[in-house]
Amino acid sequence: MRAFVTGGAGFIGSSLVDRLLADGHEAVAFDNFSTGQRAFLDEALRHPRFSLVEGDTLDPPGLARAMAGSDVVFHLAANADVRFGTDHPRRDLEQNTIATFNVLEAMRANGIKRIAFSSTGSVYGEAHVFPTPEDAPFPVQTSLYGASKLAGEGLIAAYGSGFGFEGCIFRFVSILGERYTHGHVFDFYKSLRNDPTRLRVLGNGKQRKSYLYIGDCLDAMILAMAKTRRAIEIYNLGTDEYCEVNHSIGWITERLGLRPALEYTGGDRGWVGDNPFIFLDTTKIGSLGWTPKLTIREGIIRTLDYLQQNPALLEARA
Amino acid sequence: MRAFVTGGAGFIGSSLVDRLLADGHEAVAFDNFSTGQRAFLDEALRHPRFSLVEGDTLDPPGLARAMAGSDVVFHLAANADVRFGTDHPRRDLEQNTIATFNVLEAMRANGIKRIAFSSTGSVYGEAHVFPTPEDAPFPVQTSLYGASKLAGEGLIAAYGSGFGFEGCIFRFVSILGERYTHGHVFDFYKSLRNDPTRLRVLGNGKQRKSYLYIGDCLDAMILAMAKTRRAIEIYNLGTDEYCEVNHSIGWITERLGLRPALEYTGGDRGWVGDNPFIFLDTTKIGSLGWTPKLTIREGIIRTLDYLQQNPALLEARA
Repeated sequence: MRAFVTGGAGFIGSSLVDRLLADGHEAVAFDNFSTGQRAFLDEALRHPRFSLVEGDTLDPPGLARAMAGSDVVFHLAANADVRFGTDHPRRDLEQNTIATFNVLEAMRANGIKRIAFSSTGSVYGEAHVFPTPEDAPFPVQTSLYGASKLAGEGLIAAYGSGFGFEGCIFRFVSILGERYTHGHVFDFYKSLRNDPTRLRVLGNGKQRKSYLYIGDCLDAMILAMAKTRRAIEIYNLGTDEYCEVNHSIGWITERLGLRPALEYTGGDRGWVGDNPFIFLDTTKIGSLGWTPKLTIREGIIRTLDYLQQNPALLEARA
Repeated sequence: MRAFVTGGAGFIGSSLVDRLLADGHEAVAFDNFSTGQRAFLDEALRHPRFSLVEGDTLDPPGLARAMAGSDVVFHLAANADVRFGTDHPRRDLEQNTIATFNVLEAMRANGIKRIAFSSTGSVYGEAHVFPTPEDAPFPVQTSLYGASKLAGEGLIAAYGSGFGFEGCIFRFVSILGERYTHGHVFDFYKSLRNDPTRLRVLGNGKQRKSYLYIGDCLDAMILAMAKTRRAIEIYNLGTDEYCEVNHSIGWITERLGLRPALEYTGGDRGWVGDNPFIFLDTTKIGSLGWTPKLTIREGIIRTLDYLQQNPALLEARA
């Protein structure tokens, strides 16, 4: 199988590339390196079944050319930062919605019908059912990020109905682990490295969030794709637990041996459109035989250890 | 109040313009005349509180200029043909999703926060709950049209959360009545006018569909907008009944005094992504005090009478 991975130099994309190569497949990473990192592909680049194409999902002809000869597309390229949508609304539209359309059209031009898509639990807006199942009540969007990913989901489902596309839409909680380069563990660790005596926390710290370890995420994606034929299936990906931001801070500071003063910005959410409670029902993916190996706490500790071993990453982003 | 109506020369848009003028408001119609008709604005153009701007929602600067000074936007411009999405997938993306983004950005540039949006019952895909309420189980999209409208809904809701936008998203069933220029009554009448002895019917004729008369649709929109403040509300708009395509054919042929041979194309749906059963729960809009005045049968007859009186319309479209 030859897999085409958009965002292939990113956190999840590069990890997926390594996994696909280890499983005996060919892999093509497609990335514009806006947030992807060449270093994540160091190992892959030495592999005979790997190739890298520097390109942009907003360049349809280049995208279609690069995709030629692939059997399946893992579309992971995205603006993945849910927090700053209102600063630049066009970014989510272009990088998440229009880019997904371009990927679908490039697939159609190449006769490729199998797709895996990284959507998000943010499409549930502020859910009222917990844990939230895939068929929860029709949500109202609260963030441009969630809206742009929901638009991507809708396009893929319509291509399933209209053009016989098949594959999986994955609604991720926050993914963490090795190569993780943005999110609360990153922000907290970077801040504590600069000043171990104090830590600024968005909101009141009582937000309840879910996290999934990258290895468990890859296991789920590969399993679900192997089992899905002649349909577009939607799967929540998360753990059967959640944690408060305050718990995560406790685990992080304990691991670092620090006792910073916590400074809360206040309110029950971290930013406009932040969802104070994310907890997805993973019964559907579990029914395929998948179960996560790491708890949230273990995933956070592993992420922290990785960041400590790779301090250069902390400087790589603004 | 000065209302800006995109698609203001279309079926619903021009009817809304006339209603707004009659209610004492100012109205600006914005239309690119791709399907809108200047004749629909004959009366409005004689009105001192009306102005017409020929422009395209895919031209952001022109859109923002035309919108200046308005208090509320009725965003009705769209590719409204649900049937041929797979022939030109880009059309729904551009005319429904990107155009809606452009409208929202033009509003933001002008400091306008009130919006009404014509969405569709097609966003429910193939619903499993009938009548289908606004918070039905999270649907899977089956048409590019539905997907593009759902994307528009998501954008508007996110602008509500992120920028304080307020107003209404209306999920229409098929609207008919005076100035109706596409849909099954149009197609059937046009066909019978050419050949009264036979009628080709997409699918098996047993598709169950809902229709709403334009006057009732306008009543609902204006009432809901008057009652909605500081939120984005979503309303189904339809009747508390549905009919089979075969029933509609019976009413039409009876009115015309014809007994054509019916030729079914077969299958349980009319086209790829067609939904064989549309029946929306209108409890929410009803709770505002709205109730439709015409039955589906009465709406269809009135539409037919209008088409008979305006034969030129039948030639206006391919």
